[in-house]
Amino acid sequence: MAITMSDLAGAEPDRRFSPFCWRARMALAHKGLEVETVPWRFTERDKLPQPNAGRVPVIIDAGKVVHDSTTIADYLETRYPDRPSLFGGETGRALTSFVQNWTETVLQPALVGLVVLDIYRHAAPQDQAYFRHSREERFGTSLENVVNGREQRLPAFRDSLAPLRRTVERQRFIAGEAPAYADYVVFGAFQWARAISDFELLAADDPIAAWRGRLLDAFGGLARKAPAYGG
Amino acid sequence: MAITMSDLAGAEPDRRFSPFCWRARMALAHKGLEVETVPWRFTERDKLPQPNAGRVPVIIDAGKVVHDSTTIADYLETRYPDRPSLFGGETGRALTSFVQNWTETVLQPALVGLVVLDIYRHAAPQDQAYFRHSREERFGTSLENVVNGREQRLPAFRDSLAPLRRTVERQRFIAGEAPAYADYVVFGAFQWARAISDFELLAADDPIAAWRGRLLDAFGGLARKAPAYGG
Repeated sequence: MAITMSDLAGAEPDRRFSPFCWRARMALAHKGLEVETVPWRFTERDKLPQPNAGRVPVIIDAGKVVHDSTTIADYLETRYPDRPSLFGGETGRALTSFVQNWTETVLQPALVGLVVLDIYRHAAPQDQAYFRHSREERFGTSLENVVNGREQRLPAFRDSLAPLRRTVERQRFIAGEAPAYADYVVFGAFQWARAISDFELLAADDPIAAWRGRLLDAFGGLARKAPAYGG
Repeated sequence: MAITMSDLAGAEPDRRFSPFCWRARMALAHKGLEVETVPWRFTERDKLPQPNAGRVPVIIDAGKVVHDSTTIADYLETRYPDRPSLFGGETGRALTSFVQNWTETVLQPALVGLVVLDIYRHAAPQDQAYFRHSREERFGTSLENVVNGREQRLPAFRDSLAPLRRTVERQRFIAGEAPAYADYVVFGAFQWARAISDFELLAADDPIAAWRGRLLDAFGGLARKAPAYGG
């Protein structure tokens, strides 16, 4: 039986825009596992399989419920050890955490500041009030104010990607010749942004754009085929 | 015969302050290899073993000359495969590059801006004119101007360490339970700074300070015993 996964969706049920769900989608594909995704909205907490933490992704694998993208990645690595490794061993597992921590303290916070209003616009109608309220409380200002002047912030944003840029200009993937979970964590953030925003984050000749293209093509174009904008 | 290593020294021959040399020192210790260091000054290019690129570290291992810290790390891993691994395999090797690229595009440039005048002050007398001239040309301003207002820049510097902080607050070392080359790359930058500067980079309760302490204690206190300031 295929694994099922609750996956954040917008007004259009096929538009999937959670960076954490994209991590899990790519990790499942890396392991060669079939998955059936179930569109889920922010306000549908009671529709998630139990137990959960009120967030997606949540997967069910042969009756076992696993939630939180990091826990899911570790679960898949342990449960399917004979399939391609997500981490390349114990040291690789630990080093992947550094890449994830960079993504969550540098990349994702910067991206939110550029595209949060686009997220709101693509959210399901029943989610919009919740989304605006919770995010404006977090930012202490309106979503419109958060993204205001984003064109001026673009050069600093691109500068902040220097560690990623230098890495993928010297090797095909963050994890080396082939992609692994570290790539999916970073890619999930870019795929999240492109799912809901036409704001061009990367210069066309940025090596990061080429790396993103390689991941869009991975697994038969899994991410490229999903509803999204440009790049 | 012990490996010899040309190691950047200051006015005091025992004060060693190259981040790249510290990477190599720690990597050699990780492999359990004995090393005899040879103090070297910026202006002593003709005293380096051939071939070299005019920089340290350069090692000689049983007659073989290897230069550049990254090349040395790869050399040691290949030459001494039965000793503790510096990378934990191929994926770990690739992921270590991301940590190194973060160190070289975020951490080290920020550190230079805080301590470059302290480097000048500790450089050997015959190196000072060269050091000041080459660095002022690079910065387009005087060393005094570069470090001016560093106290005000300290909070932003500490914020920029978020990926490292989150990592070492959740695991003992960047590479996991035990340190590996990724740790030595980042540590090399901190050890470089503390070798020549009493400017306190980290708050006492910063998890990064605790991680740095664990590396100062590693290999019988190799780095802690070297001439340096506080922390």
